Amino acid sequence: MRIGAAYYPEPGDRAARTRDIALMQAAGLNSVRMGDLIWDQLEPEDGVFTLEWLQETVAELGQAGIATFLATPTASIPLWLHRQHPDVMHLTAAGVRKPFGKRRHACLRHPEYRHRSLRIAERMAAAFRDSPDIIAVQTDNELMAEEPHCYCAYCQQAFATWLEQRYGTVDRLNTAWGLGFWSQRVRSFSDIFLPQKGDNPSAYVNFLAWASEVAVEFHAAQRAVFKQALPQVPVTHNICSSGFLYLLDHYRLGQACDVMAIDNYPYGWTLENEYGNRGAFTFSPHMTSLALAQVRGGRPGQPFLVAEAQIGRTCGNQRKIVEPRMVRLWSVQEVAQGACGIWFFPFLPFAAGHEHVMAAVLDGDRIPRRRSAEVCQIAAETASLRQVTGNALPVARACILRDFRCDWAFEDGRFCADFRPMRHLHQWYRAVRRLGIGCDVVAPHQELSGYDLILVPALVLVDDTVCAALEAAAARGATIVLTCLTGLRDPDVRSFGPLVHPRLADLAGIAFMEQHPLFAAEDTALRWNLDDTAQRCGLWHDVVTPVAAEVLAVYASRFFAGTPVITRRQGLPGTVYHVGSILSDEAIAAVIDQACGNAAVRAPAVSSHDQMELTEVVGAAGRFVYALNFSETEQPIQFLVPAADASSGEPVGSEMRIPARDFRLFRLVN
Amino acid sequence: MRIGAAYYPEPGDRAARTRDIALMQAAGLNSVRMGDLIWDQLEPEDGVFTLEWLQETVAELGQAGIATFLATPTASIPLWLHRQHPDVMHLTAAGVRKPFGKRRHACLRHPEYRHRSLRIAERMAAAFRDSPDIIAVQTDNELMAEEPHCYCAYCQQAFATWLEQRYGTVDRLNTAWGLGFWSQRVRSFSDIFLPQKGDNPSAYVNFLAWASEVAVEFHAAQRAVFKQALPQVPVTHNICSSGFLYLLDHYRLGQACDVMAIDNYPYGWTLENEYGNRGAFTFSPHMTSLALAQVRGGRPGQPFLVAEAQIGRTCGNQRKIVEPRMVRLWSVQEVAQGACGIWFFPFLPFAAGHEHVMAAVLDGDRIPRRRSAEVCQIAAETASLRQVTGNALPVARACILRDFRCDWAFEDGRFCADFRPMRHLHQWYRAVRRLGIGCDVVAPHQELSGYDLILVPALVLVDDTVCAALEAAAARGATIVLTCLTGLRDPDVRSFGPLVHPRLADLAGIAFMEQHPLFAAEDTALRWNLDDTAQRCGLWHDVVTPVAAEVLAVYASRFFAGTPVITRRQGLPGTVYHVGSILSDEAIAAVIDQACGNAAVRAPAVSSHDQMELTEVVGAAGRFVYALNFSETEQPIQFLVPAADASSGEPVGSEMRIPARDFRLFRLVN
Amino acid sequence: MRIGAAYYPEPGDRAARTRDIALMQAAGLNSVRMGDLIWDQLEPEDGVFTLEWLQETVAELGQAGIATFLATPTASIPLWLHRQHPDVMHLTAAGVRKPFGKRRHACLRHPEYRHRSLRIAERMAAAFRDSPDIIAVQTDNELMAEEPHCYCAYCQQAFATWLEQRYGTVDRLNTAWGLGFWSQRVRSFSDIFLPQKGDNPSAYVNFLAWASEVAVEFHAAQRAVFKQALPQVPVTHNICSSGFLYLLDHYRLGQACDVMAIDNYPYGWTLENEYGNRGAFTFSPHMTSLALAQVRGGRPGQPFLVAEAQIGRTCGNQRKIVEPRMVRLWSVQEVAQGACGIWFFPFLPFAAGHEHVMAAVLDGDRIPRRRSAEVCQIAAETASLRQVTGNALPVARACILRDFRCDWAFEDGRFCADFRPMRHLHQWYRAVRRLGIGCDVVAPHQELSGYDLILVPALVLVDDTVCAALEAAAARGATIVLTCLTGLRDPDVRSFGPLVHPRLADLAGIAFMEQHPLFAAEDTALRWNLDDTAQRCGLWHDVVTPVAAEVLAVYASRFFAGTPVITRRQGLPGTVYHVGSILSDEAIAAVIDQACGNAAVRAPAVSSHDQMELTEVVGAAGRFVYALNFSETEQPIQFLVPAADASSGEPVGSEMRIPARDFRLFRLVN
Repeated sequence: MRIGAAYYPEPGDRAARTRDIALMQAAGLNSVRMGDLIWDQLEPEDGVFTLEWLQETVAELGQAGIATFLATPTASIPLWLHRQHPDVMHLTAAGVRKPFGKRRHACLRHPEYRHRSLRIAERMAAAFRDSPDIIAVQTDNELMAEEPHCYCAYCQQAFATWLEQRYGTVDRLNTAWGLGFWSQRVRSFSDIFLPQKGDNPSAYVNFLAWASEVAVEFHAAQRAVFKQALPQVPVTHNICSSGFLYLLDHYRLGQACDVMAIDNYPYGWTLENEYGNRGAFTFSPHMTSLALAQVRGGRPGQPFLVAEAQIGRTCGNQRKIVEPRMVRLWSVQEVAQGACGIWFFPFLPFAAGHEHVMAAVLDGDRIPRRRSAEVCQIAAETASLRQVTGNALPVARACILRDFRCDWAFEDGRFCADFRPMRHLHQWYRAVRRLGIGCDVVAPHQELSGYDLILVPALVLVDDTVCAALEAAAARGATIVLTCLTGLRDPDVRSFGPLVHPRLADLAGIAFMEQHPLFAAEDTALRWNLDDTAQRCGLWHDVVTPVAAEVLAVYASRFFAGTPVITRRQGLPGTVYHVGSILSDEAIAAVIDQACGNAAVRAPAVSSHDQMELTEVVGAAGRFVYALNFSETEQPIQFLVPAADASSGEPVGSEMRIPARDFRLFRLVN
Repeated sequence: MRIGAAYYPEPGDRAARTRDIALMQAAGLNSVRMGDLIWDQLEPEDGVFTLEWLQETVAELGQAGIATFLATPTASIPLWLHRQHPDVMHLTAAGVRKPFGKRRHACLRHPEYRHRSLRIAERMAAAFRDSPDIIAVQTDNELMAEEPHCYCAYCQQAFATWLEQRYGTVDRLNTAWGLGFWSQRVRSFSDIFLPQKGDNPSAYVNFLAWASEVAVEFHAAQRAVFKQALPQVPVTHNICSSGFLYLLDHYRLGQACDVMAIDNYPYGWTLENEYGNRGAFTFSPHMTSLALAQVRGGRPGQPFLVAEAQIGRTCGNQRKIVEPRMVRLWSVQEVAQGACGIWFFPFLPFAAGHEHVMAAVLDGDRIPRRRSAEVCQIAAETASLRQVTGNALPVARACILRDFRCDWAFEDGRFCADFRPMRHLHQWYRAVRRLGIGCDVVAPHQELSGYDLILVPALVLVDDTVCAALEAAAARGATIVLTCLTGLRDPDVRSFGPLVHPRLADLAGIAFMEQHPLFAAEDTALRWNLDDTAQRCGLWHDVVTPVAAEVLAVYASRFFAGTPVITRRQGLPGTVYHVGSILSDEAIAAVIDQACGNAAVRAPAVSSHDQMELTEVVGAAGRFVYALNFSETEQPIQFLVPAADASSGEPVGSEMRIPARDFRLFRLVN
Repeated sequence: MRIGAAYYPEPGDRAARTRDIALMQAAGLNSVRMGDLIWDQLEPEDGVFTLEWLQETVAELGQAGIATFLATPTASIPLWLHRQHPDVMHLTAAGVRKPFGKRRHACLRHPEYRHRSLRIAERMAAAFRDSPDIIAVQTDNELMAEEPHCYCAYCQQAFATWLEQRYGTVDRLNTAWGLGFWSQRVRSFSDIFLPQKGDNPSAYVNFLAWASEVAVEFHAAQRAVFKQALPQVPVTHNICSSGFLYLLDHYRLGQACDVMAIDNYPYGWTLENEYGNRGAFTFSPHMTSLALAQVRGGRPGQPFLVAEAQIGRTCGNQRKIVEPRMVRLWSVQEVAQGACGIWFFPFLPFAAGHEHVMAAVLDGDRIPRRRSAEVCQIAAETASLRQVTGNALPVARACILRDFRCDWAFEDGRFCADFRPMRHLHQWYRAVRRLGIGCDVVAPHQELSGYDLILVPALVLVDDTVCAALEAAAARGATIVLTCLTGLRDPDVRSFGPLVHPRLADLAGIAFMEQHPLFAAEDTALRWNLDDTAQRCGLWHDVVTPVAAEVLAVYASRFFAGTPVITRRQGLPGTVYHVGSILSDEAIAAVIDQACGNAAVRAPAVSSHDQMELTEVVGAAGRFVYALNFSETEQPIQFLVPAADASSGEPVGSEMRIPARDFRLFRLVN
């Protein structure tokens, strides 16, 4: 288990470095992450390299037992590159060159930038070719964060070439994108404009897909450099924003990584931020574990790294204060979800500059206080946990299908202006996790045979392969939950003719008659047939007719009152639910409850509190349950299978109590 | 009666066309609207025309009894024109060329665009010169919608020329616009900048007026082409946004049309949208009829076309779901207000592209469902209605004066930041219509002699001609209601010296002492002298002294409490009300009630429900009352004159009940 | 005492001028302010001057006993200058040249603009060299208002030069600004970019400081011209926005003025506006007096001018109606705070143009009504007041430290996104003033020896000089209140290492352990140790340990509950309070109450109503108390020292009643 922190030493200050290393040891760290965002300290002039100080630092750290997680600095260009080639800066959609002064503002397609990015990566790879102290390499930093889209001529040309490879002829593209109406047909691929939000939906989705590919390719080129020089060292890239960054396709990135990595700021960059909500923020541990599960889904079945972990306040607006023991709980949660390394950000605060208000492991006076003590405890405890559980990873017989292309298709708001796909996905994920059941997040084209419960929330773009995979899952007995807004268009955002792909309608055993979006300020009544319970739904309303499905709940208001909102088809031999509207949490819980029953998916232990997270993991060392209590009071959990204390091996009773803001690890006995 | 839909066939797909025509016949359609927004299907390369497929389509439709409402495609330029002349695109006020990718983004003043716009119009006119199947022609599409103002050099020059014609000398302009303060005097007309919102108010109002004129002139040039080739075919232009588009002067457009046309989306583009309100949306049938009355006011006494009619969800945010039978009610309402043709938009949904989420008469699978059945019923019923009523049009002895220049003068918010002129106009229109009384919307310079009740809401810019017309109306016994913010400035937004034009103050019999705008978050108490009833007013407060008027209501809060807010002058022999503040709906209803009494304007039938609309129409076939019930419950109406069922001729009692979401037509007997 | 108004005569209209002068005399005016914003009336072509009409006007006014306050017109460039040199216009941060059409949009650094600005100033100075009628000169108009920052090449170069003077070497700058992280180090001063909000915090603060200096220097150059030609005439500049303009350093401006001047719009441009609040606006007389005190602080101990005074509605959104007698009360408040001249804006309304809705002393028909009668009364009364009190100025044994650089450091929101420094300062100022105690606003580096109570609210940037001054004050027995967010960074926004400057922590007798910002939607409980009273705090939370201080109040919620939020160190021999959070008004009142006790600062008279303002002034003529009642009801005040009616000399009892919306002046007897 690697526990570390980001470290930005002053190149020339050896005394400070030696002192800092002693402080790291005192804090229990066995690793540092170095190199990101400091390009001009490594190449102060074009082609003039000064890597010696970094080599010395790595070596001195290594001698102190502290390994280095090396990062390339290419997310922040030096001023000399900007001065030499002002057009490396992003051209915004409005046609304005971004000024120098922030970061992530160089065009990934610009040849001068790419050339120098690769060159500094090569120099770093060469400098550490024989170093035993490098345990992993991160390319760049948080690709696709911070308004990443560029509209320069290089991008224009690259996009055209990419489209030509995708479509072959402009006729195919013109038809796929529906360019006839509004008179926008292209005569050659070079005619294609770089679309903005609100432009042709097919063009925009393809633009976002291409931009994600460009970032993956940029990463892959740097990775190739390191794989040649340090073939044993895993190369990764740190995904921004707790996994809620949706502009970078995690699955495509995963294919180009040896290991996944995430920057995890549970209070700082959350699902709520993503939508600009300025209201009060209620922390949900499941929101954090969703982010971790998403990143893990980039390379299924493998552990991942937390390249940056929140240690306190961040630069943005603080909607919650990081309480004592929360960092410890997040760390254990990361380990439970599959992290094998955690680097807090940063070790020391920045005296000035962009991130000068960011809290660090130590304060600027380097006096150890509460946060460093907590880190010290985390280092010891996570090491112990990994000793007990070995390489155990979360067990999941349930999964959620997520395709980033669908996020992009929702981006322009045309389907339903107030609908937010990640919020919807989180609603369903949370409902499963509150039952103590493990849940993966996977791409629709990944292998689904291991899953007995497959949730398909608003998978708006589908193709025949996805339909076939779901049909196959149903045929082998799996339970599938399709929610509204699934299967409306093909991957080019083109209609199938019928409102929903006919194979999905058939699979659900229903016929789609009408579809009605609605804005968030209004909602609709829903009534369960079984017990007449009333709930609310809204935002989208499928009006369907059952063909081979039973009706579980109906709309109870509006002109379609009495028609089905939730249906179930059984005996395929699998079961397929269809949910025709965006439900309340309570209604989702009711669906999940039934669907888990159909799928015979059960948790080994349960809790009724929404600030509890129970995670079952399995590995060569056995089966375990992490019970994390994020609440401020002691919470009971119930075991449904025999369990023992993981350290002592003592059997535990059917009910155990987890102290406030604390956790326990149990071994399952069977 | 023409009932049709917009149709966008694939040029080469004859089989689909034949199948679609059969579907149109099944849906009861006798017309289609074709040609808009498909320029590059008609001219795929500069000067290369492919109109044969359209000719064939028109002919095949004609053989099936379906006439064509032809539209020119010039609202969406082909990519080849953009590539050849990138500067045809609008230059925004911020100095940015709009990128290709939307529509309506070419400069109407650009010679290359105008040349090719006229040329395609000429080709279409030539192609259909002998066609008996063309029943009307629409130029372009929704002029002045979608951020229409351009700031390019062509516009700059054209504006200067227009101003020179208007003012003659720069001295006159400098004085009229008050350019001395802030040191902005021009020395020649070529000095004039294109103003933005917030610039000199006189300049801005003139800029908006000029831009509207440019659009009218652009339309007129295309119309001239068609009038030469197809002299019998009426030429029109479809006004966007349910008539609430205020950037195009409807009256000036009307002078250049043979018939008016509106795109009517009662749930999609409403008075509420106009002001960006995201709260819940309460539909008012009078809001819709106001839009229709406004468009009808462009050519008083003539029927008009509904070039696009809402059939279901649109592309924007959905604040209400279109319920069954609403489309039918809107159609009957359109007929009642004077429509002689309705084209739903569109017949088939777009498989992809900008409008792919727009609901159509049929779904993409072409299976007839609820919406097409409703269209079929509408086609039959509106034909019957027109058979009974003939060319009857709404009767109106009341009118509202609206001058688009006043809308433009309010645009910069200087008079009163939170005041919205169309909302104010709607308040007064609705108060009249709720009494079952017909109300026209007319320009101040139109003939007013037919009106006994003249409402003048916030007519902020006036000239002596308007004053004289109102004086004449009072002299012949009419009742006039002047509301606050009327007569403050001349058409150049220049003060008369006194707070209000002295002739209007004299007409009202009051002296203006002070004027106090206030923001919307606060309001003021009002008290009726007659019965001490208390109500609210706000936004603007005229403080006046009665000279020859009696005081009906006074302010009851603030420092001017006790001074008049509503006055009445009688015995001119007409009556003049003055309302010095923005009233609540209740207070407006009280004023209207009295004013109708003074004017002896009465409805033939009344209802107390605000979702009812009663419309009296008259023509060679007699006098009729349409009773439309938009509510979800049965509603009673009371007849004040003898009436009969319009179909059977059977006399009806003094009270009739109109079923929920339904309508009845009655013949008035006398 | 000068009472006047802004006057913008038509150059050629002598008859109007003569008539206007008579109206001024009737309104009791003895001065006009002329010349601002009319450049092209004085120089209609480049180098062609027409000042004769202005000379004539000044002379004719002078003969009528009306002196002129002359202003230079340079805030609005003529169109000819724009046409000759389009690049005089501001280049925005987005790289767009501002279009002509507003004002204040020329770059103060542009040589062509500066050359012509100086030239017109020289011509005006020459024209009035021998004039006895000029009593003061104002340079330009409201510098640094209306988005004043320019990003052109001239600014770029000037900023670089200024930084080179400040730092000497780029190494010093790179270190001070923390440019290593994010790879932004410069190699030469010419490398420096002009920063925007959100860029490097050190760069941004220095940019704002430089821009303020540029404005001061621009003013100073014009002043030098006038000091040479009219050495006896005081030169000033009118600070915009009631003193809440924070982009212009009032202290630096003060050093370059002979007298300070403010444009005072108590309902029009307020502390609330500054933060874009659109909610209801509660007027506080202390908000207005704070603005006046701030401007007075630019030249401590001297009277100042009110170059523009609100007379009625302004151009912006009206959140309150100016009630009768409020203008009179504001005028007396201005005199009480030290004004020796007041010019209402404007005398006559503008018939058209940018400010055509602005209320004036007279209406456009020139008929005297309520506002001109009130002005007439003000002229008489303020003259009488000055006759009684002579040159008396407010007494203040309390002061608030304000450093504009701190405002600029808070501007980017990094410290605490929802914190507003002026709102915080106003909270503390108001708490003192509500007790009837005088309070100055002074720069931290000004002489503090006269103050017994020194408030230091959120003085985020400090240096050793400030620390020493506070230590010295404590050593001489003064009472100091430090609030949170004080002393966090040096003037370059660079950390001292510890969370707070160690000398300030020592002074307060506490150790800083943690700091927690929080957004405005949440707050925290606070409990007073003395009586267990509960209150609220929020936005920022210092977590401290007492070292040599007693704990007055503790946090009562969150994980740091029970730790000190308010501490007091006594016996230095002075007393130092530290307040670790943003308190409610009630909690601030409690602190101020105690601190005033420690400092033995007492008011001569008190009132319990928050719409009352009591101001003690002192001068050669004696000691006086102004009692202003802004409320709508009579209010009692209590005298703590013997007092007499200022006019009659009659002793008054210990309680006096001030009529609603009225004032009284008392002489203190001792």
